Amino acid sequence: MHIPGLSTVAKRASGQAISYLMQAAFQHSDCLSLAAGFVDESTLPTQLVLDATKRILTPNATGRSKLQYGTTPGVESLRDVFRSHLAVLENNPDINNLPLDRIVLTTGSQQLLCLLTQTLFDPGDICLVAAPTYFVFLSALDGMGAEIIPVPTDDNGMNPDGLESILQNLTDQGRRHRIKLVYAVSYYDNPSGISISADRRQRLVHIVQEWSSPQQPLFLLEDAAYRGLRYEGPVLPSLWSYDGAGETVILTQTFSKSFSPGLRVGFSVLPKNLVKPVCDLKGNEDFGSARFNQHLLADVLQSGSYTAHLKQVVASYEVKRNAMLAAATEFFSDIPHVHWIRPSGGLYVWMTLSPEIHTGFDSRLFEYATQTAKVIYVPGELCYPTSWNDRPRNQMRLSFGVESPANIREGMQRLACAVRHVTE
Amino acid sequence: MHIPGLSTVAKRASGQAISYLMQAAFQHSDCLSLAAGFVDESTLPTQLVLDATKRILTPNATGRSKLQYGTTPGVESLRDVFRSHLAVLENNPDINNLPLDRIVLTTGSQQLLCLLTQTLFDPGDICLVAAPTYFVFLSALDGMGAEIIPVPTDDNGMNPDGLESILQNLTDQGRRHRIKLVYAVSYYDNPSGISISADRRQRLVHIVQEWSSPQQPLFLLEDAAYRGLRYEGPVLPSLWSYDGAGETVILTQTFSKSFSPGLRVGFSVLPKNLVKPVCDLKGNEDFGSARFNQHLLADVLQSGSYTAHLKQVVASYEVKRNAMLAAATEFFSDIPHVHWIRPSGGLYVWMTLSPEIHTGFDSRLFEYATQTAKVIYVPGELCYPTSWNDRPRNQMRLSFGVESPANIREGMQRLACAVRHVTE
Repeated sequence: MHIPGLSTVAKRASGQAISYLMQAAFQHSDCLSLAAGFVDESTLPTQLVLDATKRILTPNATGRSKLQYGTTPGVESLRDVFRSHLAVLENNPDINNLPLDRIVLTTGSQQLLCLLTQTLFDPGDICLVAAPTYFVFLSALDGMGAEIIPVPTDDNGMNPDGLESILQNLTDQGRRHRIKLVYAVSYYDNPSGISISADRRQRLVHIVQEWSSPQQPLFLLEDAAYRGLRYEGPVLPSLWSYDGAGETVILTQTFSKSFSPGLRVGFSVLPKNLVKPVCDLKGNEDFGSARFNQHLLADVLQSGSYTAHLKQVVASYEVKRNAMLAAATEFFSDIPHVHWIRPSGGLYVWMTLSPEIHTGFDSRLFEYATQTAKVIYVPGELCYPTSWNDRPRNQMRLSFGVESPANIREGMQRLACAVRHVTE
Repeated sequence: MHIPGLSTVAKRASGQAISYLMQAAFQHSDCLSLAAGFVDESTLPTQLVLDATKRILTPNATGRSKLQYGTTPGVESLRDVFRSHLAVLENNPDINNLPLDRIVLTTGSQQLLCLLTQTLFDPGDICLVAAPTYFVFLSALDGMGAEIIPVPTDDNGMNPDGLESILQNLTDQGRRHRIKLVYAVSYYDNPSGISISADRRQRLVHIVQEWSSPQQPLFLLEDAAYRGLRYEGPVLPSLWSYDGAGETVILTQTFSKSFSPGLRVGFSVLPKNLVKPVCDLKGNEDFGSARFNQHLLADVLQSGSYTAHLKQVVASYEVKRNAMLAAATEFFSDIPHVHWIRPSGGLYVWMTLSPEIHTGFDSRLFEYATQTAKVIYVPGELCYPTSWNDRPRNQMRLSFGVESPANIREGMQRLACAVRHVTE
């Protein structure tokens, strides 16, 4: 539908993947959902939030201040708590000396992703991304008219050699000045489930640092949304931890997956030069996210109830991940050319079908799955830049976030049935 | 400071008024504040929020759902509650039949203001505003590169004849297609304290409707942030209530002033054509504001505790408004050429000094007030488009929001002393 009078930004934002997906989910609410990025409702911490509310809202000046405006990046005492949390995560007490003005609290980490696209990208500027990657970030980049270029990615995450050769190629084309950002979901990627391997982390950061210069800064955005949801494998250091000077890596984290998405609390660490520009834009947008919610999270972090809760959440998701992987083996193993990635954490199993089986909203598979088999998934092609004509069409993001283990098995059985149906 | 690598949007957003103001407030935290737009901390409803939290967070599926993701505009059952609230405010039960998809819940009303600038404005597009007007909205417009043109305004608010003649002039210049929006704070304006008078409301809406066409839509953004804070005078119908077709007026409201700014809950009613574009952009930004907070507000609205609380808040602010007006009379009456507006609601008294007395951050008055007299105010020039070279320099926005009645009197006495000092 053409709507007159809209800005270029609004025109670019129309028809984004998340809109289609939410509409599809709404239309197919009778389906088992292997699509939603929602979290497991049974884990949501009602009692902990109530207890924290009781503690923080004492009916005096201290309590009342938590319902007042804060500041655009969040009040200092709160940022201090999130900084301490980061010091524990990074196992590095020196982080407690990080200047507090480098920390910005946001409405989930999504707001930071969006603010950063606005801060860095003019139309035609370039962002380098893993492929596949998080599709709402692709939408935000599209909204700013950015050019999105995929970096070769394998089971160990973004390939450093691939990144270097793309940087070299673009430089040879005289386009270095257009490259603004490299984006990576560093832990249990959405959608691939892959973590960047330990040996690649430092090198990726160094490559970005080497290609950055004071006059043409290049940043690396580390989206650590799923960091807390680790079921097996090593505790990996963040990419940010390798950025000693703190001028290259933007680290963003959220409590949406590990605690509650309904609170929308995220925090980021920004290179010094980006603090003011990001806060200027955030000032126009909300002059500060909900302070009450930040106090809630700070309280559960300080009381220790966050850590205890996260253990339960991780245990619950691990069972569900195992259910999905077992069902994949049980129902998909003998379908030709099907393979999938075993994630060590996060919420997603990324599955690739035989090349001729397309998975998009318009595909026979999607229609049969949602209309007849009654199961819904996220078509993999949403997770590639729409400008990339060669993007794979035969993949699916399967989430074990919302359904029970029994329903996950049932959903996978239905999905395998649908794949068989369109194969024949 | 020049920071390389920023987008055009980020460059435009730098040096905005709110940054200067917050920095000034921080530097002068030893001053009595007649500057802050914060609300009276003693009124903040800790007990009501705690009671509501207890009610909504029952430890079962219903309670847990309140900590889950919602949808980009807010879940339907919540929008239903805000629609009912609006029906009561408007004294019009028919509003309960308004399609729910026209209602969007946001992070305060500020987020809607910002989203709307992104939705409508390309660089060079025109917004018509009262002068003076809300300075953070001016910043958001600046961020999009909009041209901001003031409409003549008097003690009855935006002048309809003035609006018509500006529309005609711009059309004669061949610039009608660049005009996107008329912006008005309809109740107890920030900063002027003026409400648009009853007899002007319908006419303003009709003018905008007449100048709008399907191919060149013109919208009227009604910012009703202070609507609930009425101390005297008639209950005025919204501008939105005169827009029968619902295609012209965007109504936005917030609970930041009337309940708690730390919760950041606002709601808006959008013309049909703007719902999807605004939600597409909001989807990129946060795919929904904090759902928990929306449930809190819905609960206090439904339980009746909001209405009871608002009565107390209004009574408290009325005392403080009276204290400021009495102090203005006591300390400023015999200073030549000083006058001020008596507001019937809201949080601000707008004061004009003798033309030669400048009030800006660089002025002798601001320096003496903050350094010696120890009182801070908002320089009036922030509330005009920076592009308007003829903007008045001799005005002040005085807030009675945060200080006690005694401190308001003391602050006004200090300020009068400072004015006398720079007059001599």
